[in-house]
Amino acid sequence: MTYCVGMRLNNGLVFMSDTRTNAGVDNISSFCKMRTFSEPGERFITILSAGNLATTQAVISKLEERNKAPEDRAPSIMEAPTMFQIARLVGDMLKETIAENAMTGQRADAAFNATLILGGQIKGSEPRLFLVYPEGNFVEASDDTPFFQIGETKYGKPILVRAFEPDMTWEQATKLLLVSFDSTIKANLSVGLPLDLQVYETDTLQQGLRRRIAADDASYHAISNGWGTALKSAFDSLPDIDLNN
Amino acid sequence: MTYCVGMRLNNGLVFMSDTRTNAGVDNISSFCKMRTFSEPGERFITILSAGNLATTQAVISKLEERNKAPEDRAPSIMEAPTMFQIARLVGDMLKETIAENAMTGQRADAAFNATLILGGQIKGSEPRLFLVYPEGNFVEASDDTPFFQIGETKYGKPILVRAFEPDMTWEQATKLLLVSFDSTIKANLSVGLPLDLQVYETDTLQQGLRRRIAADDASYHAISNGWGTALKSAFDSLPDIDLNN
Repeated sequence: MTYCVGMRLNNGLVFMSDTRTNAGVDNISSFCKMRTFSEPGERFITILSAGNLATTQAVISKLEERNKAPEDRAPSIMEAPTMFQIARLVGDMLKETIAENAMTGQRADAAFNATLILGGQIKGSEPRLFLVYPEGNFVEASDDTPFFQIGETKYGKPILVRAFEPDMTWEQATKLLLVSFDSTIKANLSVGLPLDLQVYETDTLQQGLRRRIAADDASYHAISNGWGTALKSAFDSLPDIDLNN
Repeated sequence: MTYCVGMRLNNGLVFMSDTRTNAGVDNISSFCKMRTFSEPGERFITILSAGNLATTQAVISKLEERNKAPEDRAPSIMEAPTMFQIARLVGDMLKETIAENAMTGQRADAAFNATLILGGQIKGSEPRLFLVYPEGNFVEASDDTPFFQIGETKYGKPILVRAFEPDMTWEQATKLLLVSFDSTIKANLSVGLPLDLQVYETDTLQQGLRRRIAADDASYHAISNGWGTALKSAFDSLPDIDLNN
């Protein structure tokens, strides 16, 4: 499993992903699930991936045109004029990669499926955030649904739904993501530290803060421990109920 | 889907279940998923069910021996000398019922599977709480895992893990269950009000408080609305993080 979240804030975009991959519970590894594509001053793009690791790595490799010699590469993701076109490109690449594996008659215990979160900005347009499905189609974040989750989404959703605000600062957004990831990590062994954080500030058109949050990260520990206590206090602050009426 | 929780407290047992059943999102109904068997002064048993409704209703009917005339019924669930034997009985009944449907070549979009929570007390023994699997086997709650969830368990788990205390009062336990159910109802359309609550106090050997919590229940609204605010305050109370170091 995996857990990744992409959020659209008033100030820009924030992304967080875990790094655990697993084939069964007895075979776990650590892989970064966050890729960025950047041409400073012109565009900045982040892709988060959940699902079959071979599929998502193949998609990223194709997007980077790694089948060509470095000097011949001109990735379309760096040329496409709009984020919408990039979403179509990424969606098509994803659908084709899944189909290639499926159609050669290969079998796997798990499906070859994968789901992506794609976000970024191209000069002259607004920042945009998409959820790309294994079928190659996609949906865009809106004011009604300003964030997307992929992978193990359920444990960490209630706090996102309740505490998300579009005018959060980067610090507040990171704190919210850490709480959501902490709830998930505590409940599902297949989601694990370290976490990757990427902040993109609107109109900077370059990679903003990128940080890896490891198991010994002091902020993570403060949030994780503090959240247990805070949740207990929140619970205690609820009005009493009367069972006898 | 469904959401049911059974908890073992120092004072006894508490059970809560929702009432929504669905075959697709366009075909929902309301069914009680909580059954009790009682012989005052001798035993009190509660069963919560999640999964195929035809399966769980058939299991309950068999346990009540509804294939016999009312005057001929002597349900083994009311005769078995221990809760462990009752768990075996219920597990066997569940496994057989699932197998009957599967082996007659019937097909359904959803499986015939079901999972049960079984709790109660027989005079002279402690109250006991079991989770009964579709395979007919079962596990018992312990100090390490003092509650069981069945159905849509993920959304409502983080708060149970963080706020459960074995010495909670009935009011506190009900409040905790309401928060857990509220988080689930807000996230999954296939879990819905009204909720059924059953409290069993150790050594009373009779049905304790039973209450139906409907959509217009004042306590539920106070908890549901209060929880949003409390969660926001809890989140705000977390230590600030510094993204720049």
